[in-house]
Amino acid sequence: MSTKIRLGMIGGSLDAFIGSVHRMAAALDGTIELVCGAFSSNASRSIETGKALQLSEDRIYASFEEMIMKEAQLPADRRMQFVSIVTPNHLHAQPAVLALQHGFHVLCEKPLAFSFAEAEQLGTQVKHTGLLFGVTHTYTGYPMVKEAKAIVASGKLGVIRKIIVEYPQGWLSDPIESGGQKQASWRTDPAQAGISCCVGDIGTHAENLAEYITGLKIVELSADVSSVVAGRQLDDDANILLRFNNGAKGGLIASQIANGEENELKIRIYGEHGGLEWLQSEPNTLTVKQNDQPKQLRRAGANHSYLSEHARLHCRIPAGHPEGYIEAMANLYRNFAASIHAFENKTAPNPLLDYPSIEDGIRGMKFIETVIASGKENAIWKQL
Amino acid sequence: MSTKIRLGMIGGSLDAFIGSVHRMAAALDGTIELVCGAFSSNASRSIETGKALQLSEDRIYASFEEMIMKEAQLPADRRMQFVSIVTPNHLHAQPAVLALQHGFHVLCEKPLAFSFAEAEQLGTQVKHTGLLFGVTHTYTGYPMVKEAKAIVASGKLGVIRKIIVEYPQGWLSDPIESGGQKQASWRTDPAQAGISCCVGDIGTHAENLAEYITGLKIVELSADVSSVVAGRQLDDDANILLRFNNGAKGGLIASQIANGEENELKIRIYGEHGGLEWLQSEPNTLTVKQNDQPKQLRRAGANHSYLSEHARLHCRIPAGHPEGYIEAMANLYRNFAASIHAFENKTAPNPLLDYPSIEDGIRGMKFIETVIASGKENAIWKQL
Amino acid sequence: MSTKIRLGMIGGSLDAFIGSVHRMAAALDGTIELVCGAFSSNASRSIETGKALQLSEDRIYASFEEMIMKEAQLPADRRMQFVSIVTPNHLHAQPAVLALQHGFHVLCEKPLAFSFAEAEQLGTQVKHTGLLFGVTHTYTGYPMVKEAKAIVASGKLGVIRKIIVEYPQGWLSDPIESGGQKQASWRTDPAQAGISCCVGDIGTHAENLAEYITGLKIVELSADVSSVVAGRQLDDDANILLRFNNGAKGGLIASQIANGEENELKIRIYGEHGGLEWLQSEPNTLTVKQNDQPKQLRRAGANHSYLSEHARLHCRIPAGHPEGYIEAMANLYRNFAASIHAFENKTAPNPLLDYPSIEDGIRGMKFIETVIASGKENAIWKQL
Amino acid sequence: MSTKIRLGMIGGSLDAFIGSVHRMAAALDGTIELVCGAFSSNASRSIETGKALQLSEDRIYASFEEMIMKEAQLPADRRMQFVSIVTPNHLHAQPAVLALQHGFHVLCEKPLAFSFAEAEQLGTQVKHTGLLFGVTHTYTGYPMVKEAKAIVASGKLGVIRKIIVEYPQGWLSDPIESGGQKQASWRTDPAQAGISCCVGDIGTHAENLAEYITGLKIVELSADVSSVVAGRQLDDDANILLRFNNGAKGGLIASQIANGEENELKIRIYGEHGGLEWLQSEPNTLTVKQNDQPKQLRRAGANHSYLSEHARLHCRIPAGHPEGYIEAMANLYRNFAASIHAFENKTAPNPLLDYPSIEDGIRGMKFIETVIASGKENAIWKQL
Repeated sequence: MSTKIRLGMIGGSLDAFIGSVHRMAAALDGTIELVCGAFSSNASRSIETGKALQLSEDRIYASFEEMIMKEAQLPADRRMQFVSIVTPNHLHAQPAVLALQHGFHVLCEKPLAFSFAEAEQLGTQVKHTGLLFGVTHTYTGYPMVKEAKAIVASGKLGVIRKIIVEYPQGWLSDPIESGGQKQASWRTDPAQAGISCCVGDIGTHAENLAEYITGLKIVELSADVSSVVAGRQLDDDANILLRFNNGAKGGLIASQIANGEENELKIRIYGEHGGLEWLQSEPNTLTVKQNDQPKQLRRAGANHSYLSEHARLHCRIPAGHPEGYIEAMANLYRNFAASIHAFENKTAPNPLLDYPSIEDGIRGMKFIETVIASGKENAIWKQL
Repeated sequence: MSTKIRLGMIGGSLDAFIGSVHRMAAALDGTIELVCGAFSSNASRSIETGKALQLSEDRIYASFEEMIMKEAQLPADRRMQFVSIVTPNHLHAQPAVLALQHGFHVLCEKPLAFSFAEAEQLGTQVKHTGLLFGVTHTYTGYPMVKEAKAIVASGKLGVIRKIIVEYPQGWLSDPIESGGQKQASWRTDPAQAGISCCVGDIGTHAENLAEYITGLKIVELSADVSSVVAGRQLDDDANILLRFNNGAKGGLIASQIANGEENELKIRIYGEHGGLEWLQSEPNTLTVKQNDQPKQLRRAGANHSYLSEHARLHCRIPAGHPEGYIEAMANLYRNFAASIHAFENKTAPNPLLDYPSIEDGIRGMKFIETVIASGKENAIWKQL
Repeated sequence: MSTKIRLGMIGGSLDAFIGSVHRMAAALDGTIELVCGAFSSNASRSIETGKALQLSEDRIYASFEEMIMKEAQLPADRRMQFVSIVTPNHLHAQPAVLALQHGFHVLCEKPLAFSFAEAEQLGTQVKHTGLLFGVTHTYTGYPMVKEAKAIVASGKLGVIRKIIVEYPQGWLSDPIESGGQKQASWRTDPAQAGISCCVGDIGTHAENLAEYITGLKIVELSADVSSVVAGRQLDDDANILLRFNNGAKGGLIASQIANGEENELKIRIYGEHGGLEWLQSEPNTLTVKQNDQPKQLRRAGANHSYLSEHARLHCRIPAGHPEGYIEAMANLYRNFAASIHAFENKTAPNPLLDYPSIEDGIRGMKFIETVIASGKENAIWKQL
Repeated sequence: MSTKIRLGMIGGSLDAFIGSVHRMAAALDGTIELVCGAFSSNASRSIETGKALQLSEDRIYASFEEMIMKEAQLPADRRMQFVSIVTPNHLHAQPAVLALQHGFHVLCEKPLAFSFAEAEQLGTQVKHTGLLFGVTHTYTGYPMVKEAKAIVASGKLGVIRKIIVEYPQGWLSDPIESGGQKQASWRTDPAQAGISCCVGDIGTHAENLAEYITGLKIVELSADVSSVVAGRQLDDDANILLRFNNGAKGGLIASQIANGEENELKIRIYGEHGGLEWLQSEPNTLTVKQNDQPKQLRRAGANHSYLSEHARLHCRIPAGHPEGYIEAMANLYRNFAASIHAFENKTAPNPLLDYPSIEDGIRGMKFIETVIASGKENAIWKQL
């Protein structure tokens, strides 16, 4: 790549946790340059953030509308090439559509939109413009998730029969939103988060991970959805039965009231001939299991020749020096930038440098709405 | 205890795996003596087994009926005091009833009976005779399961909100019953196992463990039950949504087609103020969690003063020398023998030397029937 | 085996931790019967123990001398066949010699004797009588230790290059012997323990384990030996450099002042082509490693066909139901009983049913004396 | 910080593993900008690297001498502020001295120099210029290493008694240097690496980690040093006895022939009242132990209020999203940049934003020479 891909950020002011993670991820590999931003709907906070990030003052904007309009008027070799949207859920679609309409590729936080309907409209817009669109289901950026996908695809496990995926967290065990904790406040507010807190925030990651690794689709689900903490308006816990398009069955557990848990996203996949296990909090190990065989611990590492090419392409350093979450997100940014580069050069991108697509994002929204609908009808089965 | 409690065994011939485990468990602590047995419905195999076990030939019987009748005629200080029933499910109730009718206490393998109706009749018989009856839900014999129960009872976790319990195994991933594998053959045969394989064999353990530790009761469930392996007559996989009598919710996963898994029975319990995690394959550790606190690893050990008395009473050796499954079962035998001793001496047994009761066994049968019924109606909610 | 092998126990009164472990281990497999004992040098305590164990009163003895003399006069088919010596170190050799002289096989706790000289004399006596002699280096009884030995012997690792073995404990971090803690009192008393506490009690286990698995011999060592706790007469910590007879090098760390550690006996072995790791506190897993290959977790289990026959012969139950320390010791007892049976029937015992020998015991004593000698000369190299 | 600190890199061409890690680490937090480089002693490779990194062509230099000279002539607000030296060992001191002489701060890879003598001269130069000098002992940048240091400093463990630190790797198990593997070639070449391979490359990390966390100094050591692989000119394995300035003892194991190991840097520290354990391959957990207390697992996380301020300042994201090696190195870069900023503003830097100093580097060189000297004299004790 001869020059860095230019990024404009929407949302992510200094006091927002996820904004700085995106910036670190974008910066890590040296292929992307943050050139502008509309970091907050509060103009002065946006400016303060942009200054702290040492952007030129003329590239710090008071609103995403302003940014998109003004950047579009800059020379092609100066203006931003893509936007990264890291706002709360209700502020995803509008800037995304505007960016697409003005010719900018979009990388958007998940869940994709405020509602499934909004997500579908966004999908139409993406198709219409032919531009690139990615969704930061970050966990699929881990090398050992790629390895898991490669193993399933290789047929080594045979037909997949059972999938258990879970994402327990404990941080919403108490009604901290009422004390004004910022992360909790918007996620538990229907006006900002949409119809779901727990399922939207972490259940969709679990859904996306299961479908990504197996290549299967959930076709039916039955969800027991709860607002455990008194007074909370949205769900904070869900236990879900899953059925997949090949007949496999499974379970999905998402919780924000699993007191004492951090981000214990875990997936287990069982096929005719073997099984897999991966745990986000120890992301550099993938356990491969088979009846009457020793368990295998495959380990991330750019030097591990036994890994699939897909996995190795997502490792930066040799085995034993752990890579983590920021690196996983950086893989999404790097791959998205590579796609932009290929797009602009009209070449084919390397299909192994993949990232979650608009379809993944739309599917996530459908998942959320299906789960919440099932939950409202006492966990009746719903098609997905 | 001045003399050993005398045991007669029903089932458990040399080629049956579980019989030898029971004998090792009964022998471990030196409080029980195996004095007689009807080890098989095949008389010559029973005799062969009894001889190998070095029983007097006159105490080796060709059938359980013969054993119960003849032992009942021996002097009170010679005859067996309790029977241990380790036969397949369809042969639990009949010998149990006969033993009770002749004045013998009974320790019985799980699931308690062939059907819930049969289990209830057995319960009536137990009440009627006033004799002792235990069920070998072995996992509750582990010291750290006792510790978990003590922690929940202490209120340290606050109100329990969520329970996830799972028991994945992989050994039935292939139709090994058609090759005559003995353990698989009877468990997958409706004539011997009853209406369930997976739920009856391991799902009940998960159910029992969850209710034992929390003191809660499952009041409603929705079960997606499968026979994954082609041609199998009974279930080999189930994903179940749970609701408990205090409003807690949860999930129970049981599988025999989780290829590569051994006996990964695991329970996680979350309350208002913290959580617990215990895994059978590393049974000497209990993890206690709490938001914004270091995780605690409590470890089994007779010398650990920080453990509850309940846990310490079930450890034989100091921390660091692991105890296992046989020791857990030995705790059941030891406790049952202590109860017999107290019964005969008309003293109160130590309530901490507990074992699963006839009520636990009946409840397990109700659980099985409820799960299978729910499964047959596409996972409709069923009361338990 | 047609009848149980008859055991007489020397030491192991009710208040001695290790006595009950030996009794559980001897009882576990039903091949050994405890028929008599001299459980304490205090006659009334011996009698009290024997009664609690429900021995015939005429088989409870006031001293080991009495036991050996009187048992020797019983008919051959009634008298004990072997003694198990579980007394403190200074009381090993005398009863062992007397037992041998009267025709009894001996299974003795480690370290074998009070001194290397005493051990050698005992060795001469064993040779002279031609009787069987075992030493309870219990850790070699674990199935996955057998597996490790089989892997090294298979050549899979190539020439062994490096061995790290360690046994950290924390229980002597404080001068608990001055408060009269029984286990600590005799172990830190030169009159009862000999010249070493830490190296004799646990360092020898580490030495034995390393030599057992690898089949190599330590030929030279340099030991930094300490009495860390003020006022303690014997060592409670040692860091040792090792050199082996094939040129391999290594380290041995033993400590009783590693505050917070239980019995973290661990061994790592590295060869030209791969490595092994085994940890006593998770004894059912053996990790096999190789550069640029997934790590393998081999798991104990009677049903695991991938394990060596040596390992499988030392598993009682299928994989996933953990076996522990008592089972490991029971393997020694069972194997020793099998050797007695073969001895009496003049048949060849199965060489895979092995147990630590008098030579292992003598070597352990030499190891202790060499380490202490090196420690006294500022860790000078000493030949072993 | 109002503007980014400007970095010039010496070494680290595209084919050098460590160069890209440094660049990622420097880029991660957005406080440093790579403005120039002399990436190789091969001018065309340097230029190729600089172009790939999208540097202005006038800031890509053919040699470090050229870079230092020319940058020194640029305006103060444009020229680089510090150099990062990532060359092989023999090329550390010369550019470092030149950079210092021209007013540039220096961050240098470890081991600091080609020899202890050279390191001391460099130390003199640093003192003379009064400029900042850091050494990338990267492992001290992990948050849980900071936490360990804070715990020891708090006195919670009491007087430190024993330290075991180890760094086993397997990658040099075969003579891969003879096949031209670049990383192996220079590290095993005395002309480039100096007198040591294993001790210099990884033993110094272990030494630094132990002294950093405990605040103690090694005062005496006895080292058994080996070149295990035939034909190798430098050491690839060492087992070392340690004595510390407070009387604590310990062991240090470093190996590059521990076949199957990745970077298993691990430290255990035991004091009067408790112990600590940290393992680099699972860096976000610190285990705190104490006799008769549950083990504590402290976990990295910016949100964990129970952590020391020192640890929290080195976490970027909340607990549960793992950070890794690049983040640890980024902590060094960020802290070094903060020190430069404070230096230039004549303010006091935050002492918690620390990084390894020239003294640490000099000490590492003394450690290497002492170990090798001891090894040459059959592990005789040497003062350090």
